[in-house]
Amino acid sequence: MAKRIVIALGGNALGKNLHEQMDAVNITAKAIADLIEAGYELVIAHGNGPQVGMIQNAFAAYRREDESRDVMPLSMCVAMSQGYIGYDLQNLIGEELDRRNTGMHIATVLTQVAVDPKDPAFQHPTKPIGAFMSEAEAKKLHDEKGIDVAEDAGRGWRQVVASPKPTEIIEIHTVKALLDQKHAVIAAGGGGIPVIWEDKYHLKGVPAVIDKDFASECLAEQLDADMLIILTAVEKVAINFGKPDQKGLDTLTPDEARKYIAEGQFAPGSMLPKVEAAVKFAESKPGRTALITLLEKAKDGIEGKTGTRIRA
Amino acid sequence: MAKRIVIALGGNALGKNLHEQMDAVNITAKAIADLIEAGYELVIAHGNGPQVGMIQNAFAAYRREDESRDVMPLSMCVAMSQGYIGYDLQNLIGEELDRRNTGMHIATVLTQVAVDPKDPAFQHPTKPIGAFMSEAEAKKLHDEKGIDVAEDAGRGWRQVVASPKPTEIIEIHTVKALLDQKHAVIAAGGGGIPVIWEDKYHLKGVPAVIDKDFASECLAEQLDADMLIILTAVEKVAINFGKPDQKGLDTLTPDEARKYIAEGQFAPGSMLPKVEAAVKFAESKPGRTALITLLEKAKDGIEGKTGTRIRA
Repeated sequence: MAKRIVIALGGNALGKNLHEQMDAVNITAKAIADLIEAGYELVIAHGNGPQVGMIQNAFAAYRREDESRDVMPLSMCVAMSQGYIGYDLQNLIGEELDRRNTGMHIATVLTQVAVDPKDPAFQHPTKPIGAFMSEAEAKKLHDEKGIDVAEDAGRGWRQVVASPKPTEIIEIHTVKALLDQKHAVIAAGGGGIPVIWEDKYHLKGVPAVIDKDFASECLAEQLDADMLIILTAVEKVAINFGKPDQKGLDTLTPDEARKYIAEGQFAPGSMLPKVEAAVKFAESKPGRTALITLLEKAKDGIEGKTGTRIRA
Repeated sequence: MAKRIVIALGGNALGKNLHEQMDAVNITAKAIADLIEAGYELVIAHGNGPQVGMIQNAFAAYRREDESRDVMPLSMCVAMSQGYIGYDLQNLIGEELDRRNTGMHIATVLTQVAVDPKDPAFQHPTKPIGAFMSEAEAKKLHDEKGIDVAEDAGRGWRQVVASPKPTEIIEIHTVKALLDQKHAVIAAGGGGIPVIWEDKYHLKGVPAVIDKDFASECLAEQLDADMLIILTAVEKVAINFGKPDQKGLDTLTPDEARKYIAEGQFAPGSMLPKVEAAVKFAESKPGRTALITLLEKAKDGIEGKTGTRIRA
């Protein structure tokens, strides 16, 4: 049986604007096609921070021109970002699959992801979306519009929204059905459209953006995947990052990871959620492996040649 | 074998803004679930005129605030509209399917639809999108921004864009795979993301909005569907519409349809494309039937009790 892999694409794989996206997705599509051509059953999840922020800001600008217009809910903006990014990914991955005569198809499944309405994240927005601002612009936005803002990993100020943990991939049957029929699948884009169960049957959209690493982890568990790959901007997870004694890690056990997390080795909003999601997957069932590495090293990483492998 | 049906939802099934959409889609979801529960294999296509116009206008407003921002291509706006509308449809149809314990799933497939780059429609924009304007506003938009505008069926002025004919549903394998695995499928939303074949492998987005009735027809042919249902605001196609001798039609042959079309019986941009798409499907293979009726009469129509049946 083919190895089933969920791969989480980060910002680097998509670019921050339309122009960057076209170049970035071209490179991403080739790397993804390499994996599909190699015979792996692949599910591709991706982030949407810059894109969902852009969509939300566009509708805010539209409403500034006429206050009678609807406020566009953030869940709807996430749904739009799945169309926006998914189209580009499936267009270029599909082209690569055809060029290589793989006989495989690619599809984007619009995906809702359930979260717990009592998740404390709703009280503490932490997920940065949209463009960077100066501190002064950010504080003005907060004071005048009540929009939450925060400093993002030393790169500037951004809007922040609630980022509750995913509990369930609603369209999991669809993803499974397509994997069984010669498809690679793009799913849980932007962490998924965030919804809560209002009663036994009704799913209601909520204003949040789910972290794509945790959504990918949830997807990987529900698909009984063999491997979760979290792509990032470095080849290996490192301790003492940016210091003279920086050390890249080939392997990481959940216990080691917890020790390093306690030491503050991994940056919140950057490497920390990736390591946490990787540990969660590695501990979810014996034999499951998470891999953190660069997009262009993913194939080598699966073969055990590089990257950081997280395993119980 | 279950009867395979492609159903094309029009503006009435979706509403013109977010508020109308919530109410309209609720009613639509129940009617759609009725058909799935009755055992039909169902593919749902839908229009996006008001929505894609709104998305395009939002990005235009965003760019007016900062001209360095990207112009959002219309094909990308269509992709976003598939996310926006598909999410709402699948959320509420899924809820109905679960309430009724059907064991069926619903999925939205992001769909590219190919058109001919030499289609004369690119030289003659006719498809109205977005909000209605006064004639003065429309002429100002045309003179100042070079945007094409036209009067829309006596209801006011709107922007018009190219509406080339669909030649191929790119994600047809995905739709078939899901139909085979207990799914109803939402596909070719907004007529599909319009693309052209630039070479044997590369599909390029083009500035157009494909008519959803023709996209549904193309989808129905490629799926070898038994029936194409085009929903509209009247129970039956009528001749002498709005006159004392108005007559609703129970059946219509392609030859009769051509005669009525030559007489100018059907309004362009309204009933005319529906009748044309219905005739094309009815003539595409022996035994294929098209049905034009109201959403709430669809089930009765399939059973031959009402609506207008178009058959060779």
